[in-house]
Amino acid sequence: MSVTPTERVAAAYARIAEVDRPEVWITLRSQAVLTTEAGELQRRVAGGEELPLAGLLLAVKDNVDVAGLPTTAACPEFAYEATETATAVQRLVEAGALVLGKTNLDQFATGLVGTRSPYGAVRNALHPELISGGSSSGSAVAVALGIADLAIGTDTAGSGRVPAALHGIVGIKATLGVIPAHGVVPACADYDAVTIFAADLDLAVTATKIMAGRDSRDPRSREWPADIRLSASAEPKIAIPRPEDLEPLSPAYRTAFAETVAALRDQGLRITEIDISPLLDAARLLYDGAIVAQRYAAVGEFVDKGAPGLDPTVAGIVSAASELGAHVYAHDQDTLARTRTIATTLLDDFDGLLLPTTTEHPSIADVEADPLAINRRLGTYTNFCNLLDFAAVAIPGKPAADGLPFGVTVVVPAFADQLAIDLCARITGTPAPLLVETGVPLAVFGAHLRGQPLHWQLEQLGARFAGEITTTDAYRLTALDTSPAKPGLVRHGAGQGAPILGELFLVSPAGLGRFLAELPPPMALTSIDLADGRAVVGFACSYDAAVAATDITPYGSWVAYLRDR
Amino acid sequence: MSVTPTERVAAAYARIAEVDRPEVWITLRSQAVLTTEAGELQRRVAGGEELPLAGLLLAVKDNVDVAGLPTTAACPEFAYEATETATAVQRLVEAGALVLGKTNLDQFATGLVGTRSPYGAVRNALHPELISGGSSSGSAVAVALGIADLAIGTDTAGSGRVPAALHGIVGIKATLGVIPAHGVVPACADYDAVTIFAADLDLAVTATKIMAGRDSRDPRSREWPADIRLSASAEPKIAIPRPEDLEPLSPAYRTAFAETVAALRDQGLRITEIDISPLLDAARLLYDGAIVAQRYAAVGEFVDKGAPGLDPTVAGIVSAASELGAHVYAHDQDTLARTRTIATTLLDDFDGLLLPTTTEHPSIADVEADPLAINRRLGTYTNFCNLLDFAAVAIPGKPAADGLPFGVTVVVPAFADQLAIDLCARITGTPAPLLVETGVPLAVFGAHLRGQPLHWQLEQLGARFAGEITTTDAYRLTALDTSPAKPGLVRHGAGQGAPILGELFLVSPAGLGRFLAELPPPMALTSIDLADGRAVVGFACSYDAAVAATDITPYGSWVAYLRDR
Repeated sequence: MSVTPTERVAAAYARIAEVDRPEVWITLRSQAVLTTEAGELQRRVAGGEELPLAGLLLAVKDNVDVAGLPTTAACPEFAYEATETATAVQRLVEAGALVLGKTNLDQFATGLVGTRSPYGAVRNALHPELISGGSSSGSAVAVALGIADLAIGTDTAGSGRVPAALHGIVGIKATLGVIPAHGVVPACADYDAVTIFAADLDLAVTATKIMAGRDSRDPRSREWPADIRLSASAEPKIAIPRPEDLEPLSPAYRTAFAETVAALRDQGLRITEIDISPLLDAARLLYDGAIVAQRYAAVGEFVDKGAPGLDPTVAGIVSAASELGAHVYAHDQDTLARTRTIATTLLDDFDGLLLPTTTEHPSIADVEADPLAINRRLGTYTNFCNLLDFAAVAIPGKPAADGLPFGVTVVVPAFADQLAIDLCARITGTPAPLLVETGVPLAVFGAHLRGQPLHWQLEQLGARFAGEITTTDAYRLTALDTSPAKPGLVRHGAGQGAPILGELFLVSPAGLGRFLAELPPPMALTSIDLADGRAVVGFACSYDAAVAATDITPYGSWVAYLRDR
Repeated sequence: MSVTPTERVAAAYARIAEVDRPEVWITLRSQAVLTTEAGELQRRVAGGEELPLAGLLLAVKDNVDVAGLPTTAACPEFAYEATETATAVQRLVEAGALVLGKTNLDQFATGLVGTRSPYGAVRNALHPELISGGSSSGSAVAVALGIADLAIGTDTAGSGRVPAALHGIVGIKATLGVIPAHGVVPACADYDAVTIFAADLDLAVTATKIMAGRDSRDPRSREWPADIRLSASAEPKIAIPRPEDLEPLSPAYRTAFAETVAALRDQGLRITEIDISPLLDAARLLYDGAIVAQRYAAVGEFVDKGAPGLDPTVAGIVSAASELGAHVYAHDQDTLARTRTIATTLLDDFDGLLLPTTTEHPSIADVEADPLAINRRLGTYTNFCNLLDFAAVAIPGKPAADGLPFGVTVVVPAFADQLAIDLCARITGTPAPLLVETGVPLAVFGAHLRGQPLHWQLEQLGARFAGEITTTDAYRLTALDTSPAKPGLVRHGAGQGAPILGELFLVSPAGLGRFLAELPPPMALTSIDLADGRAVVGFACSYDAAVAATDITPYGSWVAYLRDR
C-alpha cells in the first residue's frame, strides 16, 4: 500500500469537505469511526492478513443494507435500520473495504436521472448544472469526485451504467444473479442487479469478482455455468447498431460514438453493424408494459399510503402499476422470452455488442421541466439488458466535442461477462482482468500453442491464455510420429530432464472434459510440475509413443525445435 | 420386429373397434392411410434404415399440432388446421412412430379429470364409470387400452401424470424445456411440459430421449447442463412425505402408498420422511394465485367471445383470470422463486422424492357433481412440480385394495431426470434406461473400480456405471508405488500386452474436467482401445512411473491381482 488506510480515510474526508456536495450522502459515517476502522485494518494487514481491498473506501447506494445504518431507498418515511449487511457489501468489507456511508439515489431506484430524491437532486461531479444520472447517482458521484474508490449501485433499467457514462467512470452490471441481491430493497425483483462503480476497469472487476458467488438467501442468485467461454476471441468481432438505431443520440453523442468506433477500427478490431431493433423494442417493456407491476409489488402498499417524502414522479409510476392486469404481465413475459432467443441469436457470431451507454447529457433544469420523456430516452440502450438476461460493462468512450464525458457499453449474453471485460480492456487499452475464476489450468507444449496448428481447438472452447510456463527438470521433450507433428512431454524424474517451455490456458471444466474426450492417441493429460512450484493439468503421451519418439530435450521447447529443424 | 408395422396397425384398428371408446379420439386417422404409412416404413426398415420406433403407434393429445390435422384443444370453435408438426411429435415420427390420431383432453388442457370436453368425458380404460384423469385423458386411455404404444400428453398441473396413475401406466414429465413445446397450444406457457405415456418405463424413456433437445423456436427450451449427475446413488436415499402431508389421500390410496413404501424398505432402500408442506403450499399458487392469468393470456380473448363448444368449468376458470392484478402475479412469482430454493434444498440429501401421484380415483358422476373441488384435490401432489422447476416420473405403485391402480411419482429438481428414472427402475424392478446421453465414457482399471477405495470420487461426480470392459492386447498392467495402491495401464503396442479388465462409467463433461483437474501424479488420462473396437478415455500413468512399476499383466485385472497378492 502506497497510501495507508488511515491516510486514505483522512484524504476522503478532506475531499468531502472540499467539494461541498452534501446531496451525495444520505448517511455519511463519521471520520472518527472510519479512522478507527482504518487503524484496525492496518493492524490486520501488518499481522499478515491478505485483504485485497485493504484501504479502499466504499460508498453504498442507500437501497442496499449496511447493518447499523438506516436504509432509506431515498424516502425518509420508508427508512429502517438494517440489522444485517447485504451480501455484496459484506463480501467487499471482508476483503478490506471500509464503508464510508450510504448514497443518494432516485427514490426506490426508479429513474435514470439522479434528480428524483427528497434528499436533493444529485449534481454531476464534473458539471454541477448537469444531471449525475441515476438511479445510483450518489454512488457514481462519490467515485467521480475521488471520495470513494468503489461504490455499490443497483441496476434494473441502467442505473449502474448511465451514471458511469455521465462521469467517465466504469460501471459493471454482471449477469443477473451473479452478485447476490440479498439485502437490497427490490425495484423489479426479477431484474435487479447489484453493480459496482470504479475509476478503472481493473478495480471494478476485482470488486465484482469478490461480490460474485451464489447466496442461497437470494433465490435468484446463480453460479457461473460449467461450460462458459473464459476469453474473448484473439481477434474479437464486435457488433454495433445500424445508423438508424442511433437516431435517439444527441448530435454530440452521435459524433462521439462514431469516433469511438473509428478508433477501434483503427486498432484493427472487426466491427459489424447489426439491426438491434428487437433489443430496443424489448427495452420499452420495462416501463410501458405490465412488468413495472414488480415495482408495485415491492413498495406499492407503502407508496399508496402517501408519505410526504415521496417523489411525485416515482410515486406516480409505482401507483399507476397497481392497475395493470396479470394477463398483460404474462403476455409481456412471453414476449420477453421470445425476444431473449432472438437477441441471443443476434449476437451468436460476435464477442459482444458495443452501444452508446445513454443518449445525451441533459441539465437538471431540463429534467425538471420534463421528468418522464428524458428519463425514458436515457434508457434506450440500457433498459433491455436485464429483461433479456444480458450482462453489460460501461466504460468511457471518446469524449464528446463539448468536452463532456461520453460512455459506451459492451453487452453480452448471460454469463459471457468475461468477454465483455476483455473487449472493454481492448477498447480502453488496458490489460484484461480475470473475472470468472472457474477455469482449470491446462499446460500445452506443442500443437496447441498459440500460432500452432491445433490452437483453434482451445479458441473454440473459449480457453484463456494465462502466460508462458516452464516445467521442472523432470521432463524430456520428444518429437512424436504424429500428424500434425506433436511433441511428447515425457516425465523421467527430477534432474533427469530439462525445463521445457510451454503455455498455460484456463479452460472451463466442461471444456476440459470435452477436450479430453476428443484427445487422439497417443496424447494424454496428466499432472505436470512447473518450475514455479505449481502442478497443473498438461500434456503427456502414451508409453509406447514415448519409447518410439526422438529426444529433442536440448531445444527446450517445441517452437525452438520447429525453428531449427 | 416381432410384429411388422402393418400388422401393428391392423391390430390397433381391431382394438379400436373392439373397445368402443369413441370419446378417446377427436381426430382418428383412417386405417387405410396408416396401412400405407406402415408399408412405407416397412420398406425403409428393410432398406436398412435405423428407426428405433419403427412400427410403434403414437397418439397425440389434441393441443399438439400434427401437420394436416385440425388442432382443437377440445374446443370445436377453436380448431385450426396445423401446417407444421410440433417438434416433439416430429422427432418421434422421424424415429419411425406412426401417428394414429389426435386425442381428447380437458379443454385447453385445463383440468385433471378428463371430463371437461365437449367431445365427451373420457371414461377410464379399466373401469368406465371412473374418470380417466386429465387433461391428457384420451392419450392415457389410448395407451392403457393397448391401442397406441406411445401417447403424447402435456402437463402443467399434472396432466401427464394423473392419468398415468389412474391407469397403471408410465408418464414422464421431463424437466421444463427439455422437450420443446413448439407446436403446442399454451395452457400456462411458462409451465407447460410435453410428456409421454407408455406401458413401461423403458419405452417411455426411449421416446423422451428422442423428443429431448433444444429447439430455438421454443424460447423456453433448454439443453441438459454440462455438469449434471448421470446416475442415482448405488444406495439411493429416497424422501417421502410425513403422515400429515398424506392426509388428502383416500383411505385406499393411503394404504396403497404405505404398502408401496413398505415394499421399497423391504428391498433395502433408504427411506426418510420429510416435511413437504413448502411444496404443497406452492401447489396452490397454480390456480389460486395470479399465475392462472397465463391461461387468460393464452386463450382468454377467444374464451371471452363465448363459443358454444366451451366447457363451462374451463371457460369460468379462464375468464376469471382476466381480473387478476399484475402486481399480485409479480408477488406470486417472487414467492415461487423463494420456494424453489427451499424445495431444492429440501431434496439436497436425497436421490428423489417419492409421492402418491394423486389423491383418489373418483367416478365421473362425482366429478360432475363437484367439478372444482375434486379436480383441485387431484393436483395436490402434482401442481407444484412445474412451478418449482422439478421433473417427475409417474409409475404404478402397489394396487389399491379395491383392485384399482394406484400410482406413485418420483420427483427431482430440474435436470435430475436420470435420477428419477433410476429410482423408478429400482421401484418397478426393471433395468434403468439411459435418458441423458451427454456423458463421456471413462474407463477405469484400479482404485476407481466399484468396491475399490477411490470409487467414491466417481459416485460424487454422479458417474453412471456402463458395464465391464476389456482392452485390446496392446496394454500391460503394472502395480504402481502409490497410496492407495493403484495399477498403471501401460500401452506397449498391439500384441505386446494382454486384454485387461476394467469398468466403464459415463461422466458429465464438467465432471470429467474436474476429475482430471484433481488427478494426482503419476496418473494420466488418455484414449484407450477396447477389445470391442471402441476407443474411450481411460487411465494411464506417467513414463517414469511405468518404468518403475511391477508388471502384473498375467493377472488380467487389478482385482485379480489384489485377490492373489
